[in-house]
Amino acid sequence: MLIVMHHRATPDQIRTVVDTIDEMGYRAKPIPGYQRIAIGLVGNDGRVEEARLVGLPGVREVIKVSKPYKQVSREWREENTLVRLENGTVLGGPEVVLMAGPCAVESRGQILEIADRVRHLGASVLRGGAFKPRTSPYSFQGLGARGLELLAEARDRTGLAVVTEAVDAESVAVVAEHADMIQIGARNMQNYPLLKRAGRSGRPVLLKRGMSATITELLLAAEYLLSEGNPDVVLCERGVRSFDPATRNVFDLTAIPLAKSLTHLPVIADPSHATGMRDKVVPMARAAVAAGADGVLVEVHPNPPEALSDGVQSLYPEQFRELVAQCGPIARAIGRSLASPPVPLVAEHAGV
Amino acid sequence: MLIVMHHRATPDQIRTVVDTIDEMGYRAKPIPGYQRIAIGLVGNDGRVEEARLVGLPGVREVIKVSKPYKQVSREWREENTLVRLENGTVLGGPEVVLMAGPCAVESRGQILEIADRVRHLGASVLRGGAFKPRTSPYSFQGLGARGLELLAEARDRTGLAVVTEAVDAESVAVVAEHADMIQIGARNMQNYPLLKRAGRSGRPVLLKRGMSATITELLLAAEYLLSEGNPDVVLCERGVRSFDPATRNVFDLTAIPLAKSLTHLPVIADPSHATGMRDKVVPMARAAVAAGADGVLVEVHPNPPEALSDGVQSLYPEQFRELVAQCGPIARAIGRSLASPPVPLVAEHAGV
Amino acid sequence: MLIVMHHRATPDQIRTVVDTIDEMGYRAKPIPGYQRIAIGLVGNDGRVEEARLVGLPGVREVIKVSKPYKQVSREWREENTLVRLENGTVLGGPEVVLMAGPCAVESRGQILEIADRVRHLGASVLRGGAFKPRTSPYSFQGLGARGLELLAEARDRTGLAVVTEAVDAESVAVVAEHADMIQIGARNMQNYPLLKRAGRSGRPVLLKRGMSATITELLLAAEYLLSEGNPDVVLCERGVRSFDPATRNVFDLTAIPLAKSLTHLPVIADPSHATGMRDKVVPMARAAVAAGADGVLVEVHPNPPEALSDGVQSLYPEQFRELVAQCGPIARAIGRSLASPPVPLVAEHAGV
Amino acid sequence: MLIVMHHRATPDQIRTVVDTIDEMGYRAKPIPGYQRIAIGLVGNDGRVEEARLVGLPGVREVIKVSKPYKQVSREWREENTLVRLENGTVLGGPEVVLMAGPCAVESRGQILEIADRVRHLGASVLRGGAFKPRTSPYSFQGLGARGLELLAEARDRTGLAVVTEAVDAESVAVVAEHADMIQIGARNMQNYPLLKRAGRSGRPVLLKRGMSATITELLLAAEYLLSEGNPDVVLCERGVRSFDPATRNVFDLTAIPLAKSLTHLPVIADPSHATGMRDKVVPMARAAVAAGADGVLVEVHPNPPEALSDGVQSLYPEQFRELVAQCGPIARAIGRSLASPPVPLVAEHAGV
Repeated sequence: MLIVMHHRATPDQIRTVVDTIDEMGYRAKPIPGYQRIAIGLVGNDGRVEEARLVGLPGVREVIKVSKPYKQVSREWREENTLVRLENGTVLGGPEVVLMAGPCAVESRGQILEIADRVRHLGASVLRGGAFKPRTSPYSFQGLGARGLELLAEARDRTGLAVVTEAVDAESVAVVAEHADMIQIGARNMQNYPLLKRAGRSGRPVLLKRGMSATITELLLAAEYLLSEGNPDVVLCERGVRSFDPATRNVFDLTAIPLAKSLTHLPVIADPSHATGMRDKVVPMARAAVAAGADGVLVEVHPNPPEALSDGVQSLYPEQFRELVAQCGPIARAIGRSLASPPVPLVAEHAGV
Repeated sequence: MLIVMHHRATPDQIRTVVDTIDEMGYRAKPIPGYQRIAIGLVGNDGRVEEARLVGLPGVREVIKVSKPYKQVSREWREENTLVRLENGTVLGGPEVVLMAGPCAVESRGQILEIADRVRHLGASVLRGGAFKPRTSPYSFQGLGARGLELLAEARDRTGLAVVTEAVDAESVAVVAEHADMIQIGARNMQNYPLLKRAGRSGRPVLLKRGMSATITELLLAAEYLLSEGNPDVVLCERGVRSFDPATRNVFDLTAIPLAKSLTHLPVIADPSHATGMRDKVVPMARAAVAAGADGVLVEVHPNPPEALSDGVQSLYPEQFRELVAQCGPIARAIGRSLASPPVPLVAEHAGV
Repeated sequence: MLIVMHHRATPDQIRTVVDTIDEMGYRAKPIPGYQRIAIGLVGNDGRVEEARLVGLPGVREVIKVSKPYKQVSREWREENTLVRLENGTVLGGPEVVLMAGPCAVESRGQILEIADRVRHLGASVLRGGAFKPRTSPYSFQGLGARGLELLAEARDRTGLAVVTEAVDAESVAVVAEHADMIQIGARNMQNYPLLKRAGRSGRPVLLKRGMSATITELLLAAEYLLSEGNPDVVLCERGVRSFDPATRNVFDLTAIPLAKSLTHLPVIADPSHATGMRDKVVPMARAAVAAGADGVLVEVHPNPPEALSDGVQSLYPEQFRELVAQCGPIARAIGRSLASPPVPLVAEHAGV
Repeated sequence: MLIVMHHRATPDQIRTVVDTIDEMGYRAKPIPGYQRIAIGLVGNDGRVEEARLVGLPGVREVIKVSKPYKQVSREWREENTLVRLENGTVLGGPEVVLMAGPCAVESRGQILEIADRVRHLGASVLRGGAFKPRTSPYSFQGLGARGLELLAEARDRTGLAVVTEAVDAESVAVVAEHADMIQIGARNMQNYPLLKRAGRSGRPVLLKRGMSATITELLLAAEYLLSEGNPDVVLCERGVRSFDPATRNVFDLTAIPLAKSLTHLPVIADPSHATGMRDKVVPMARAAVAAGADGVLVEVHPNPPEALSDGVQSLYPEQFRELVAQCGPIARAIGRSLASPPVPLVAEHAGV
């Protein structure tokens, strides 16, 4: 931490800052400058409350030097974390993982059909919401626990891993029971009781970036999960809020190489929510893979115009086929490959 | 809802849109234009899923006309909602209510001292966090239930109403028991299970605008509370995220007259979080009152440099005195006045 | 400037940074920290090119301590700059100055009528565009030089000072000839050839904040004017771009007290462009005065629905009367007053 | 255009709106709705001034349906515009064009060296600033006309086309004389006198998106160029301003497929300014090509730490080699290829 003094700060004011730092249990190191003096605070363990210094007379600015996160950082752990799902899918390694499925589980027929389709087309993970956080109280809110049972059935039939969202403590418990991976949605990225609960769930967590979260805040949210003992966290860029209504969000793809340089955790991308437009999903999935994403999460629906939510941005199965066909060569162009879909766990029953 | 066709849309494509609208149970009304045709969808009850129309060939754009919220709107209820707290404070009437207190309850001594100070200086409501949502897992997380007991003691001694934040279903229950008003923080504005629970709590709710929430989204979050049967909702502008690091947030004061024209609910402002700088709180509190805020919520601490959180933006008690002295004439300049602090409920005991 | 090293930086890497700083002609001062070392660069005169340091091995981050602007800063000059216009109006002193007029000069009748109206209602300065930067090439682009002549005629009749926009080098010359103050619009805040030209014009300049300019960038733009020898610069907050389409811009009123603490220059506010909605202009003008603005700039048109530009946000003369009536008491509440309109320079002719 | 009435609008108010539309010379078409009536304005030729309607009693909102741009739109011209430079390079066709060079021309040695390097590595176009718009008046402002001569010499030696920025009317003239393509920088995207001048220059124009410009505004700026008779316009996404200080800008790559669906003009991307970080330029160049960019513009300097501007984001020549090596396979993965560098016009002299 660096305390920058006003250029007319008096020697007394400078001495008070130095004494205060001493009292707080750290060491002060004055750095005389061209126009003004600055005072380095040495020994900061991340717990310094800057308020005590900001308030002192003659202080112009307090600049933080240390990053506030620890366990998620590359400095804490240099090698990539590999997050393994029960069906053998690995996130964070050389393979790019495709996760696909409807915005919401709507019916048994719908979820079984789409699970089968996306697995045959190349997905390794099935997405689908059972608990849906919706902006309006009058929108479809999901099937709840029944949706989870249907997802579990789809997993058993296809061998796909299942990722689905939890929205509060109770839903973490049931999602952890039925799914392979717990999603924390963008609106809940800073829902700390939820993060703590998911951190103790024993399941890998897919943590989506908040609508206007900085990368530092995303990493601090992940730090909540790791600090509760859960090392299996996957970050997801899904677009951030911006000023242009032309797209639903701005897809911040630079966040992918940036996050991967700051943290050892896998980072995937969600072009469906980032663009909000079906016909932009395929090019932006390509761009995400080219930027270095460890996976791509997309919405696919057997019949998008009839979807109960997010139909506008859901792909037709045919478009998902095209996505796979185009992302494969992109992955190979950068020395990676698409992960292969799993062999169904109960393949013998699937055809019965 | 208006469906705008491409300028080369064929008669067949237009017919398909009309037929689809018919099938959906609404009426279609074509509007021929200079360059292109648009088709009005008549009879929209707010449940139309646009995806079905966006996907049709020849459709360029779907424009929503209806606002998605209902009970919170001025069209639903023209007169102002008055939210009454147990100590007689009324929000939404002619008086401007001052709410003050520390970011977090830190100790019995701290909260009793500051409660006494702010009441004597002119506050009607005491704020103070017991459950603290913090960006870093390593920051002070609040005293929890013990903090609520201290707030209740401060209320009994001073006659101030108490507002404090709930962060999940369990905390709603205990906050509703000990406090007069439940705060939903900015990070939780779209935490729908929490909103639903607070909507059934029987207590007035102070709903803070999310960091990058539009006014429409804020009103939809309030709609969750009203649709659960709770009419006593107060909205709070607390700054939104923007590109300039010079202030913690951008204080969107236009949101005050704007929200008040769209909804019948009271709207207050929080200049402490909006600016993040102690010496900007007083001028911006004045500006909020001038813009028409029904109340001002500020952080005041007996000794800000020692505060366990938000010390940088907390006022000294002397500065709060100045705030009251300056906001009073501003309120009178627009034909309002500051609400008077309450007579302590247990005044006879206070001096014992 | 502070160079923060990676926590695994080697002694060699640290030595290289120190040597590089020496070579650049500055002094290096290492500051050992808890997790990592940082190196202070001492003697920075504002010309250090950080690139040379950012690129060195082991360097994690370079943090700038000095502010890049000089002559505009309060540290350079402590007392307020007073900008005096030819009709005696003073900006930056205790009086709050009202500037009013149409978006664009449309005709002789229009500008003479509105000038007369706003002067009688309390304005000291007449605004009105002759050169109009318009987003679309098909919109009305202003009357050009003819508009300037009409503004000059209005000034002669009413005694109002005239402020109008210049958009390139040629227009600076003619605006300087006919008007009292040259406006640099938001779209041109970083048009440096224009700033340099205006800095040599001999006329006071009204510099509007760019649509997404930080306060630092606004001050640097003003620095261009001062560094060309023009001390008479007035800054104007007019709203910045944000994510909510509900208003044209977000009115960043905190920028007013913030800018006034960083610079000695006067700061005014433009609620017409900031809100884009006629019925929000009056409350936000009040808020601007309460926040400490040295003046308020608003669009007023004799008949807004017929305006050739910005009619949606232009006040009716009656609304400007209301604005004056409401802003007066606000100004007095903070110990200021509204500036009185000037005595017409050619009052004897006015009635002829 | 659609005029939405308040749900309590009276028949008289509705009639007034209809009559006003009639008076304005358009036709009104009422569309009765579930909650309220809306009135379509038929025959809008893009010149309707909405102010006249917004102001009428009973009107709640006016919604624009038509896009305000014309000649740049895909509806005006379906097939891609191909922009041909003098050295044979074509933008907008199947080949992806690489443009590279230093931020600023600094010396004869520097520009000749880097031109030679980037041509041999695969660039077809040389970039380099002679007139530099700099945020601070104390930063290096470019070599001006001398810089242009050096660029022309570099072009003659290498066969590269040259693109360089013009900042005002005079510089358009000299840039048009010496360079193959005139760049309009982000800060000048809405500098309309400059756009008009460049529109009459007879040279292709590279138009960079403004720091907070919407796609619609970018297209309207291009419309200024086309409406002056210049069909050879290339758009450039270079990052937009956002809230996270982690990167210089947010690289809005979705803007590439989006713009290409709205306009027939070529669209390229500038990952140097978009990220501001040297080590993120290569992955984001890959992502831009994957998203469908028609070209990539990057800063390359023979010795970035010594660069007089933008050194932090400039690539080393070795990194540009890597960029070319990685972008080639990405281009092929989507059925395109990198454009081949030109045969030097004066190859026989080059070795002399």
